[in-house]
Formats: sequence, C-alpha cells, structure tokens
Amino acid sequence: MADAQPPKVLAFDVFGTVVDWRTSIAAGSAGYLDRIGRGDLDPAAFTDAWRSRYLSGMRAFAKSGRPFTVLDVLHREMLDDTLRAEGIDPATVDEALLQDWTFAWRRLAPWPDSVEGLSRLKRGFPIVTLSNGNIALMLEMARRGGLPWDAILGAEVTKAYKPDPRAYLGTAEVLGLAPGEVCLVAAHHSDLAAARACGLKTAFVARPQEYGGRAAPDAHLAQDWEWSGDSLIALAMQLGC
Amino acid sequence: MADAQPPKVLAFDVFGTVVDWRTSIAAGSAGYLDRIGRGDLDPAAFTDAWRSRYLSGMRAFAKSGRPFTVLDVLHREMLDDTLRAEGIDPATVDEALLQDWTFAWRRLAPWPDSVEGLSRLKRGFPIVTLSNGNIALMLEMARRGGLPWDAILGAEVTKAYKPDPRAYLGTAEVLGLAPGEVCLVAAHHSDLAAARACGLKTAFVARPQEYGGRAAPDAHLAQDWEWSGDSLIALAMQLGC
Repeated sequence: MADAQPPKVLAFDVFGTVVDWRTSIAAGSAGYLDRIGRGDLDPAAFTDAWRSRYLSGMRAFAKSGRPFTVLDVLHREMLDDTLRAEGIDPATVDEALLQDWTFAWRRLAPWPDSVEGLSRLKRGFPIVTLSNGNIALMLEMARRGGLPWDAILGAEVTKAYKPDPRAYLGTAEVLGLAPGEVCLVAAHHSDLAAARACGLKTAFVARPQEYGGRAAPDAHLAQDWEWSGDSLIALAMQLGC
Repeated sequence: MADAQPPKVLAFDVFGTVVDWRTSIAAGSAGYLDRIGRGDLDPAAFTDAWRSRYLSGMRAFAKSGRPFTVLDVLHREMLDDTLRAEGIDPATVDEALLQDWTFAWRRLAPWPDSVEGLSRLKRGFPIVTLSNGNIALMLEMARRGGLPWDAILGAEVTKAYKPDPRAYLGTAEVLGLAPGEVCLVAAHHSDLAAARACGLKTAFVARPQEYGGRAAPDAHLAQDWEWSGDSLIALAMQLGC
C-alpha cells in the first residue's frame, strides 16, 4: 500500500518495536537471580514468563474494573508473581533489589537501527510514543538510549492500556487529530490490528529476534499494513525521510 | 541559595519563560485585525487584553467547576471575548481565520537564549514542560522552535491549571518523584510561589521584555528563589551544565 496518504504524526509502540526487551531483561535477571541464590534458573525463560504475564495482564486490564495503575507498579506485581511461580517468596527478597529489578524495564536497550531510524523519521513527522509504559519509565528509557521523542503519550495520558480502543483514540484526540491522521508503528500484528480497527494508519517493522528467533505469539494476525519494513531506517526511506 | 541540592528534573513554564508570546501574538494579530477591517486597533494592546483574560481565566478555572478543557479551546473562547470587547461579533468573522488566529499561540518564537539554554540544561537534567498549554499546542511549538523537551507534561496530563496545586503535585507524581526533587523554572514570581508552596524547588529567569518593558503584574511577589538568572544559559551555568 505504498500509495497510502502519509500520516500527520507517527506514534510508536516501544517494547519490542524500538527496544529489545528480551536481551536487556534476561541480562539483568541473570544478575538478580544470582544475587538471590537462584542462579540455577534460566534468565531467558524467566524473562519470557514475566513478559507473558504482561501480555495477558494488558489484555485483561480494561475488564478487571481496576482503576488505572501505572506500568511500573504492574511490572512489580508481575515480577512478584513470576518469582512465586518459581517457588520464591518475594517477601524474603531485599526490597531495594526488587525495585531495581522492576526498573530494568526502564533501562532497555534500543535495537541497532532505532536511534538513526527515529532521528530520520523525526525530520518528516512528529514522533510520539503510543506505549503501555508510563511517562517516568519512557522518559528514563529515552534519556538512556537517546530516543528523540517529540512527546511521550499512550497509556498514562489516556488512562487505558492497549489494546483497549481508548488508548489509540485518546492518543489521536490529545494530538488534535482524526484517527486516520495518526500512524501506529509497531512490530506486533495484534497491536496494529487494534489500531486499524480504530481507524489509525499502520506501519509494521519486523523484529525477528524479539522472541530470540522464535515466532511471535501474534504472527497469525498479519495483514497488509500500509507500510512495512525490516528496520526503522527502511520505514524512513519509504516515508520519504 | 547557590548551595541548594540540585533537582532531579527541571520543569519549565513556557509562555513568557521560554517563548516571547507578546511579540509573536502582536505580530500575528496585526495581520488578522487588518484582514477583518480593524487595522485601527493597536495589536499590542489587543494582545495584552487577550493575555489578561488568560491570566484571570487560569486562576478562576479550578473554582468554576467546569470539566477540564484544553487551552486551545479556552484560547479561542478568550479570543471571541476579546473581539466582543472591541465591538466585533466573532460570528461575523470567517471561522478558519479565527481558528488560525487562535493557533498563533502554537507558533510563538523562543527567546534568543532558549534553544541553547535548554540544550545545555538537557545535558544535566531531564527537561519537561510544566505549562498550561495542551500537548498538541506544545508539540507544534516545540517542533517549530526547536525546543528539545524530554516530555510534555503539565495541565493536560494532570487535568489541572496552574496555579492549582494539583498541576505541580501531579507533575511530580507522574515523574515518580517527590515534589522537592522537581524544580520549576519560570519567569513569573506568582508561578514560582505556587510551586514553592507545593514543595518544589524554584529557578527564576528574568524576562524584562515579556510585557514590552513594563513591570510584570506579579513583580511584588518576588522571593529569594533557589536559582536566578537573566537567561536559560545563565541558569545552565549555575546548575553546572
């Protein structure tokens, strides 16, 4: 669909699309597991279990009736649950260590093309986050990784977690734009499908290493997205930046 | 108070502190007044009248009981009122012209030191807005003027207008910080006094031309702020950036 009208703003999914959560969290978790005497556990598997709780937690959040709670807090609850599933009682672990472990999600490293790709896209479009990460998390990640966002939007601003339609529609509203004037850039077909259902434009970036080379859980949801590339630099070229 | 502990984040007032609203709005209004056949009106006086409605409107907003409404909308209502005070019925004016005139507040030019000062301060601190401007307004202004914000916070994120304490406290909360870890940078003693009452640190930047050389309406509220300078570059040097 290279003849699609260009959007007015590019809104980015971040976890997996811009940053490599699995490598960063596994590397950090290796150290934390060692410090709590559980160096026998596989840090990559621990990471996948933590992320799996995130994916189901986000889908279930709107229906739970729980008041909006920032992701830093949910990440900690999910860490506690992941530890319990391994037979570790989080109440026996040093509190400062658990908080630091939780904030590993603030310290995720960008994919190798992300900073250059975002910088190029920023020449042609405002670039904003449309992530489930809260503002403090996204701010620290951006400063560490050099991600040049024009604005940090998404869950905390709209008080809704993707794939809740309010996260997509609310972000367009805050921007003062119609949904079709915003393009979601994401590595996840499920996220793009939810955005398209709300009327947003869609751009897919392939991240085959997001799950360590295994297929993504939403691979079956692939569609013919307006734009598609294997890096943010490739998308920048397609969008004339 | 040069021995004050440095903050963790710098949060900026924007209108008057970072950008010169009076020169920009007067220059724009001169053209719009001419186009509606009222070139006889003084554009600087018209600008001051519009700004005056803003100042009283912000102070009154919390008590009004009105649901939070973004500043783009309030700016338009205040423009209509300012026109009516000059005997002009806004219903007789072209709608697109009125919308464009309202959005002049999105196109304010930075003071000469702002971009360099912010860029230097950004090396040492996250820099965020703590402005009554809405996100779409701040985003367009930043891209036009090259203002390198790490995040756009303030009224629309907290759903409260300064000097409502919720605007200051809510911004610190979103950042995951205690109020004393945030420093408000502003050219307005009234804004700094409200921030200090909430526990924030304060930095004053003198903008003697904000009101065309006349005294600011809150000049009598001056205090001994933690930092004070005659430009953002001077503040950067004081803060070691």
